[in-house]
Amino acid sequence: MKIQVGIVGYGNIGRGVEKAVLAAPDMELRAVFTRRDPKEVGSAVPALPLEAADNMTDEIDVMILCGGSATDLAEHGPRFASKFNIVDSFDTHAKIPEYMATIDAVAKNTTAIVSSGWDPGLFSMMRLLFSAAVPDGANYTFWGPGVSQGHSDAVRRVEGVKNAVQYSIPKDDAVQAARSGDRPTLTARQKHLRECYVVAESGADTAAIERTIVTMPDYFADYDTTVTFIEEDEFARKHAGKMPHGGTVLHSGRTGEHEHVLEFGLKLESNPEFTGSVMVAYARAAARLSAEGIHGAKTVFDVPLVYLSEKDRAELIRELL
Amino acid sequence: MKIQVGIVGYGNIGRGVEKAVLAAPDMELRAVFTRRDPKEVGSAVPALPLEAADNMTDEIDVMILCGGSATDLAEHGPRFASKFNIVDSFDTHAKIPEYMATIDAVAKNTTAIVSSGWDPGLFSMMRLLFSAAVPDGANYTFWGPGVSQGHSDAVRRVEGVKNAVQYSIPKDDAVQAARSGDRPTLTARQKHLRECYVVAESGADTAAIERTIVTMPDYFADYDTTVTFIEEDEFARKHAGKMPHGGTVLHSGRTGEHEHVLEFGLKLESNPEFTGSVMVAYARAAARLSAEGIHGAKTVFDVPLVYLSEKDRAELIRELL
Repeated sequence: MKIQVGIVGYGNIGRGVEKAVLAAPDMELRAVFTRRDPKEVGSAVPALPLEAADNMTDEIDVMILCGGSATDLAEHGPRFASKFNIVDSFDTHAKIPEYMATIDAVAKNTTAIVSSGWDPGLFSMMRLLFSAAVPDGANYTFWGPGVSQGHSDAVRRVEGVKNAVQYSIPKDDAVQAARSGDRPTLTARQKHLRECYVVAESGADTAAIERTIVTMPDYFADYDTTVTFIEEDEFARKHAGKMPHGGTVLHSGRTGEHEHVLEFGLKLESNPEFTGSVMVAYARAAARLSAEGIHGAKTVFDVPLVYLSEKDRAELIRELL
Repeated sequence: MKIQVGIVGYGNIGRGVEKAVLAAPDMELRAVFTRRDPKEVGSAVPALPLEAADNMTDEIDVMILCGGSATDLAEHGPRFASKFNIVDSFDTHAKIPEYMATIDAVAKNTTAIVSSGWDPGLFSMMRLLFSAAVPDGANYTFWGPGVSQGHSDAVRRVEGVKNAVQYSIPKDDAVQAARSGDRPTLTARQKHLRECYVVAESGADTAAIERTIVTMPDYFADYDTTVTFIEEDEFARKHAGKMPHGGTVLHSGRTGEHEHVLEFGLKLESNPEFTGSVMVAYARAAARLSAEGIHGAKTVFDVPLVYLSEKDRAELIRELL
């Protein structure tokens, strides 16, 4: 019996999840739930309004929640976790404990794996694993090179900006310093460069746009930021629709008199497809844990790796251990 | 109450484990069990004969087995797992299923985490995690640059060899090919170079030694092997007592039309100290799983990461997720 999967939210991550579920031999995609007009969704399976899920608890083993952390998940998380096993990629780090408590309170007979994906997600697992393996050490997380959707949005909201994309770039000096074993304290500015490519509205004051961007609190003021104005056709050719990302978790530490460097890196051509693919592995885990009666809000820290693969344990031990 | 730890076997790994246990704030090292003369061991805690452990089941929460896979663990594994929670680093990959079955049969009221360390161990975890995250892909494992004890021993057994060390070196071309996304099939010869540094006995036939090494079946015949003869003082200065190691697990795969590269790397100044430090994290997990009544033979695939850290779950979620 294949795992019956539903997708809630059909943005970039939802489409990535759809591809991963359709490629999974042990899963069947049942429906996409969305607030959009079903006729305009274009999913491979029926697109239904969110309310349609209420009557489908017997048909769907796990709901993969693909909405954003800022608004969607605060509603979708508790709503679906009360009736379905769920997986999400809640990524507002500071609010995870509070969000988990809300989910845990309703996931009495369901299993909810929150904050999966790659950060939080695989990167979090590495930070824990590295710290446990070499406790006398320091973790460093670098993001990029890649497109930050949040920062791109922030630039697009600046007056006079027609279109924009923001790349987060780790600084080589900082990566080398993290590897050195010296355990430097690195500021935001030392770790990452922010490169903005901006298409200005015709006649806009580009100097004012640049000043507004580089001084923007939270987003850019604490970083070295470059702003490059380009024409619309160059933007379309080089930057539109591309969502590469990646990054590195580094741990440098010591046992006795010996230094060790542990490093985990991702180079992703499509951030939402990769995030979706990881969420699908955790959806498999959620369905299995639930079947074993292990309910409540879980994280990637709580799930044994053996639950992530479609292969059985004996095969994994034989082939991969 | 601190976790009470015993160490069985006091070679390089045993000494590495000792350092890690002494540095762990939640552990207390009770004794080292060894066949050596206790007066010659030099451990920080009492060195006792193996038999002394029989009466210490109430005093020791977990035994860390530091003997070799070839002979020691076949005896120590079942012997200690029947009475104690254990962790070992059984690393004869092909024999792991059989070894696990033996352990599982006796670990009725104990928890036995077998084959921890870094390969098997952390590298195995990455092979599984990467395959689950991007199923349409291929794993590549590279070892080194580092000293292979088994291959060094093989060279030292060649007639006319006074001392020797063997370094396994991943070939850059192969690492680049693995990263390329082309999923090449790489032979042993394509992946690794074997560099031997040999001190010959006075008057030995060095041409014959070199021929014997490079044609040695299993160990060298399938590889490009270099043999460099050096003087004893150079050997002592550059190679004696050094046990660096490391390696890389690479996964190159695809979702939709997009390529992704996942990479995990270790650069270790001391292979046995790092291996021992990882084993200590799994010893913590064994003690905790056992306290929860989760018994039998387990692997790194079965243990949630949250069990590895001395910090509690809420703290890990807050700080590292």
